[in-house]
Amino acid sequence: MPERLITEADLDDIAVGAAILGTGGGGDPHIGRLLAHAAVRAHGPVRLVGLDTVPDDAVTMVVAMMGAPTVMLEKVPSAEQASRAVEALAAYLGRTPTHLACAEAGGVNALVPVVAAAQLGLPLIDADGMGRAFPELQMVMPTLYGIGATPMSIADEKGNSGVFATIDNHWAERLARSATIDMGCSAMISLFPMNGEQARKALVPGTLSLCAELGRLVREERAAHRDPVAAVTERLGGVELFHGKVVDVSRRTEGGFARGEAVLDGLGGCTGERMELRFQNENLVAERDGTVVASVPDLICVLDAEAGTAITTETLRYGQRVRVIAAPCDPRWHTPEGIELVGPRYFGYDHDPVRVGMGVGA
Amino acid sequence: MPERLITEADLDDIAVGAAILGTGGGGDPHIGRLLAHAAVRAHGPVRLVGLDTVPDDAVTMVVAMMGAPTVMLEKVPSAEQASRAVEALAAYLGRTPTHLACAEAGGVNALVPVVAAAQLGLPLIDADGMGRAFPELQMVMPTLYGIGATPMSIADEKGNSGVFATIDNHWAERLARSATIDMGCSAMISLFPMNGEQARKALVPGTLSLCAELGRLVREERAAHRDPVAAVTERLGGVELFHGKVVDVSRRTEGGFARGEAVLDGLGGCTGERMELRFQNENLVAERDGTVVASVPDLICVLDAEAGTAITTETLRYGQRVRVIAAPCDPRWHTPEGIELVGPRYFGYDHDPVRVGMGVGA
Repeated sequence: MPERLITEADLDDIAVGAAILGTGGGGDPHIGRLLAHAAVRAHGPVRLVGLDTVPDDAVTMVVAMMGAPTVMLEKVPSAEQASRAVEALAAYLGRTPTHLACAEAGGVNALVPVVAAAQLGLPLIDADGMGRAFPELQMVMPTLYGIGATPMSIADEKGNSGVFATIDNHWAERLARSATIDMGCSAMISLFPMNGEQARKALVPGTLSLCAELGRLVREERAAHRDPVAAVTERLGGVELFHGKVVDVSRRTEGGFARGEAVLDGLGGCTGERMELRFQNENLVAERDGTVVASVPDLICVLDAEAGTAITTETLRYGQRVRVIAAPCDPRWHTPEGIELVGPRYFGYDHDPVRVGMGVGA
Repeated sequence: MPERLITEADLDDIAVGAAILGTGGGGDPHIGRLLAHAAVRAHGPVRLVGLDTVPDDAVTMVVAMMGAPTVMLEKVPSAEQASRAVEALAAYLGRTPTHLACAEAGGVNALVPVVAAAQLGLPLIDADGMGRAFPELQMVMPTLYGIGATPMSIADEKGNSGVFATIDNHWAERLARSATIDMGCSAMISLFPMNGEQARKALVPGTLSLCAELGRLVREERAAHRDPVAAVTERLGGVELFHGKVVDVSRRTEGGFARGEAVLDGLGGCTGERMELRFQNENLVAERDGTVVASVPDLICVLDAEAGTAITTETLRYGQRVRVIAAPCDPRWHTPEGIELVGPRYFGYDHDPVRVGMGVGA
């Protein structure tokens, strides 16, 4: 991919696309969009560079929001918070970052790095650590490649910060999660410092461009009175699982996460009578008429039935007409190591993953 | 005070004295004594220098164990853990420490700095941050002087570490306490980096010497078949509050602390019928026959009735014959700011401090 610029005009498309890839989580992209608009307006467009162009000696740092998205709706991050996380990590390492990257292509975390890149004048890599969103920080491709999440930094909006160096990425998640909870269930982190060779190998390429493309697709299909849900499903190589109405949502902020379940009743058509969705920030499992029809690590996206825009797990509510689609994840998540890290059993579900178009255990 | 050396022969006296000043908390000095013996044997004696000799341009760092002492009895710290905490702070600051200091003169935390000083070849200041022990990290004299606890480091025995920079010392306590709990309720920390001028002003002088002196007093009085409890009480300018038998102990590990109550029945004499002791790591309040007779910030020490050695709150048990003494704390704790930080109301008791020999609110 040639280098391109992310301008204010691109941000709304990226936000719409990132909400879709966020699979219900990753934080409300609206907050990220507001922060990104302000940062790009103040500091100018952000250079988006292809993953394959990152040189070996690059110093890349991932930057993200950590915590319960539900909380961020009320406790809005401070403007400089993401940059402060990057600066804290850079100071600890004694190295100046050359590139920033996204931890996840989902929700606010597709836009938080745009904010930091604009403020710090750094290029942003067109890639992310997942190709979607996941709720815990070790759940990124670099973990599969044995790359450490730490040294990592954490910063709150009040001026508190910390740096962790841990023996593995599960310990990084554990310590950073507790700090996030102390900081009010929402914090900015910078982590997975990598050189260019590591980044090229361990990130998922093209995902910010994909966000922008999905956002544009939704916008254009709506303008043309076509079916944006069908267009998004096709672009992602996915399947439509259900068309229904939200009849029950149970949601709790627990251990720093937004956990819960939603129940949908079928709206005619032939997709089924009832669907249950289970989530921990992100949608994890979709069960249709008593059978699991999709699960992590594949993507389960709840879209507005007409508009095609994503509905996050924290904004799901009674009466919404939605269509649920599933789409394949990066195939590396379906390796035994990937399934161990992000499969249904990790999240406490006693079944193998159900892969898009393949059934249980595929 | 002229410089002196802490040799292996001194460690047992320091441990006995530190257990007394630990007012029931500060961790079991037995563990600290074992670690200190090993470190001094391996690296040679530790130079103990007077607080008034610390030069203005000194780089002093406090080092301590944080957590529930009860846990440390089973999860023994690693030999290098305290040194790793100091090194993590030094690396973060980019400064080489010239002196180490004790956070508290109580229990294991009088000896942890001896371990680190021996391993790192640094002089130890004959002083501490409290003149006793307290359960939370902001409860030190430097907080009263506006000196920041952070940057501070934390290290566990597995190889995980972290550094925090916070907006105040209560935030340092909060973040470090969560990390301590994650790390298994016991961790090593290095904090309150100070120059010599700050250290001379904000530390309590002479407390390690006092520990050694108290330990020697107990040893010599016992050898001479005199009364070590009376000798310790006199040396500390305190009063004996109660002589009794432990009839009930309720203890729980809660929020990273050892919290609980003990009930004593009077053993003849004229000190009273019944005493209730309330503690959070340290003894906080002593109530005799329904009246509070001593409280933080003054020292409440439970001593073996015959041997004069201290009984920590985690080793209190049914049937022990004990004498409870109270002794005055550093007078700076009795200022309004001191009482706000460490007085009974901070710990949730709805009464003013009861000062040794002065009654309520004195």
